Amino acid sequence: MPVEVLDNELTDQRLNQLTQALGSGMFVHVRNMLHDMAASDVAFILESSPPRTRQVLWQLIDQDHTGEILDELGEELKDNLIKQMSPERVAKAAARMDTDDLAYILRSLPDSVFNQVLQSMTSQDRTRVEQALSYPDDTAGSIMNTDTVTLRPDVNIDVILRYLRIRGKLPEATDTLYVVDKHDSLLGGVRISDLLTCDPNASVRDIMASKLEGIPVGMSDSEVAQLFERHDWVSAPVIGDDNRLLGRITIDDVVDVIREDAEHSMMGMAGMDDDADTFGPVIKSTLQRSLWLTINLFAALLAASVSNMFEGTLEQFATIAILMTIVPSMGGVAGNQTLALVIRGIALGQIGQSNSRWLIGKELAIGFLNGVLWSVLVFLAIWFWKGDIALGGLIGGAMLINMTVAGFAGASIPLLLKKMNIDPALAGGMVLTTVTDVIGLFAFLGLATFFLLN
Amino acid sequence: MPVEVLDNELTDQRLNQLTQALGSGMFVHVRNMLHDMAASDVAFILESSPPRTRQVLWQLIDQDHTGEILDELGEELKDNLIKQMSPERVAKAAARMDTDDLAYILRSLPDSVFNQVLQSMTSQDRTRVEQALSYPDDTAGSIMNTDTVTLRPDVNIDVILRYLRIRGKLPEATDTLYVVDKHDSLLGGVRISDLLTCDPNASVRDIMASKLEGIPVGMSDSEVAQLFERHDWVSAPVIGDDNRLLGRITIDDVVDVIREDAEHSMMGMAGMDDDADTFGPVIKSTLQRSLWLTINLFAALLAASVSNMFEGTLEQFATIAILMTIVPSMGGVAGNQTLALVIRGIALGQIGQSNSRWLIGKELAIGFLNGVLWSVLVFLAIWFWKGDIALGGLIGGAMLINMTVAGFAGASIPLLLKKMNIDPALAGGMVLTTVTDVIGLFAFLGLATFFLLN
Repeated sequence: MPVEVLDNELTDQRLNQLTQALGSGMFVHVRNMLHDMAASDVAFILESSPPRTRQVLWQLIDQDHTGEILDELGEELKDNLIKQMSPERVAKAAARMDTDDLAYILRSLPDSVFNQVLQSMTSQDRTRVEQALSYPDDTAGSIMNTDTVTLRPDVNIDVILRYLRIRGKLPEATDTLYVVDKHDSLLGGVRISDLLTCDPNASVRDIMASKLEGIPVGMSDSEVAQLFERHDWVSAPVIGDDNRLLGRITIDDVVDVIREDAEHSMMGMAGMDDDADTFGPVIKSTLQRSLWLTINLFAALLAASVSNMFEGTLEQFATIAILMTIVPSMGGVAGNQTLALVIRGIALGQIGQSNSRWLIGKELAIGFLNGVLWSVLVFLAIWFWKGDIALGGLIGGAMLINMTVAGFAGASIPLLLKKMNIDPALAGGMVLTTVTDVIGLFAFLGLATFFLLN
Repeated sequence: MPVEVLDNELTDQRLNQLTQALGSGMFVHVRNMLHDMAASDVAFILESSPPRTRQVLWQLIDQDHTGEILDELGEELKDNLIKQMSPERVAKAAARMDTDDLAYILRSLPDSVFNQVLQSMTSQDRTRVEQALSYPDDTAGSIMNTDTVTLRPDVNIDVILRYLRIRGKLPEATDTLYVVDKHDSLLGGVRISDLLTCDPNASVRDIMASKLEGIPVGMSDSEVAQLFERHDWVSAPVIGDDNRLLGRITIDDVVDVIREDAEHSMMGMAGMDDDADTFGPVIKSTLQRSLWLTINLFAALLAASVSNMFEGTLEQFATIAILMTIVPSMGGVAGNQTLALVIRGIALGQIGQSNSRWLIGKELAIGFLNGVLWSVLVFLAIWFWKGDIALGGLIGGAMLINMTVAGFAGASIPLLLKKMNIDPALAGGMVLTTVTDVIGLFAFLGLATFFLLN
């Protein structure tokens, strides 16, 4: 529920105020400011601060709020901060966290600290933790909370209403109470808004939605997100193999999954980890980026070795060398357009067996049409620039070949990678660019060698 | 509320079944299948079908469900289908749509059809439409619904409970009822879950959250999404300048904004529109992609004209031509990594005045470190490959320059574009690649000319 509207300008203002207060050593003032803010706002400010400011701010944060704030942080920053905390502080923070976030945090701890944290917990917390840890990362189980309120089918609504009044506050984002039998098998759900508007003499069974089926605990979190998006759910029940109710997933955790998946595609295509910390330290960031650059160096050397095959041509015609970057560049851009479209389609679950062949055919056709269009334009541009009609024809021909290949490769590479269980968002761009560079250079230099040297 | 779990495999199966049934001309069977599906599932199947299948499916869809299905479709496909509908059918569909979706659809109609649609509406619907159309696209107003349930502060809870029972079903995704004074000014909110658990003798004022502030109707929808994400809201009230309650925004529309914004960054960086239809027709797709390719052709010609300045060097040293693509390639990848990070930071609202200078400095430092690292590695690789220590040194020097520039440009270009009110996700990649290509070629060919020709 909105407590206060905080727009970005305001956050920027606060960040400025905090930075100034820190700069002038007004630590007590900063501590008070932090104390009055919502956990999510403190988290946002930590995310938006350079490392040194972060360290100071973190020291000034109320120990009691650590758990809530950790809950709201991005993974990389969360891991870093937890590594610096004492096991006692982690245990204390853990007591105030949701089951799903707790499991995430414990997974990232070193074993020795993990055991220390477990020992400092109450036995009730320990049970919750052990349960949460039993579900693999990126499944419905890992974003599930166990704070469900359940009803039996044969009870009257007025009894339920009295029970709820005695029970007190409902868990966050509760829009539905689940109906189970004595074995905890999910029978249906009752919206709390229906409890307010229905006849109090009706029974739970009368007003419950009985077609409600649960999310299998092992379903991937991305699929869960697609279901929430498609059906506009606020929460949904999670069930085990035996249809037993295990917990529920709420929209706030699903929004995080949607954000992460979308960022994964975008950052992945640029060769970055989606957890990458915008304000992380320099050395760490440099090392994180080097894997991708290493792979690219090999790709660039491969392209250079293609040029190397045509050394004779390049020796005789400097103009060929001048123009040889144009064909790979256009192929790379065209291929990347297709790649982005297909990667998004895969992420949204739109592309399956029934339509992937059609899609490749369509992108091949677009590639060919693009090839025709751009070979003519490039032919004209080069003829005009260099006054050489043969040269224009050569680059036009190479363009036609490379654009057609780019359309085909842009669609088939991600689908192929997915079949091989390699993440297309991560590997697709590099494989594609290598293909369009190699084919583009080979086509242009090959055609030039064939027509100019013979 | 989940009615049935439908995972991707199931959708793929259904799609296959539908395609087969269509292929064998079993149109009645297809019509029945479509009739039994949820609107969101029909929309998903339309999105995942090639154009011809789509046409047939669209003909077979129940007229009564058109509105709900249009609600769930992506923008490009929605526009296409609406263009084919008769004004009467649009008017009929409109009657069943949410205010925000209705406004969207009407905005995309040609004027003549728009007037026809308005005339075929009931006067009540017409009022709704005129109201919805008064808010600009991409603002809180454009994703707002007007179906709020309001309470007065001095009423007792048991009166409210009786009123709700008479009133009947609450609007979708209602988690909070808003408290207003007699001028409709927003005073606070009462969660419906609190209505169930509080003392019935309390008054609305006793249990309402009074610090609740509304979202200004003119706030951008991306900022609204950030607020929802940060505060885990399910719905939030929208207010006008005078604090008057105008409506509410619900999480399902916010999820669409989050998805669109994230796709915008990803698709934009590859030169694609985020509305691009995965299974759209070939000619239309080809034309949509040509703007970006036109710009890239100019960028590639600019890079070629840099090489052209060093024609003399390229004439004498074919090896320089062979190696000249490596430096721009590495700079492009390194710059794109920085660009992706900064564009995401801007989209999340993390980057403001207080930290952008720090961020540029950090990326410059990473660029320089990358430069040192990769100049050494490329020096060794080229020395080893070509057996020429001077050539290795030249390419290493050029690499150091270009990687440093790439770090600086990757961070400063999107920030600069944002200041100029140009979308960094769309224009950033092309501007950056042009910079790294031109600087990379200029550095390598310039150094080679200086050291080898003198």
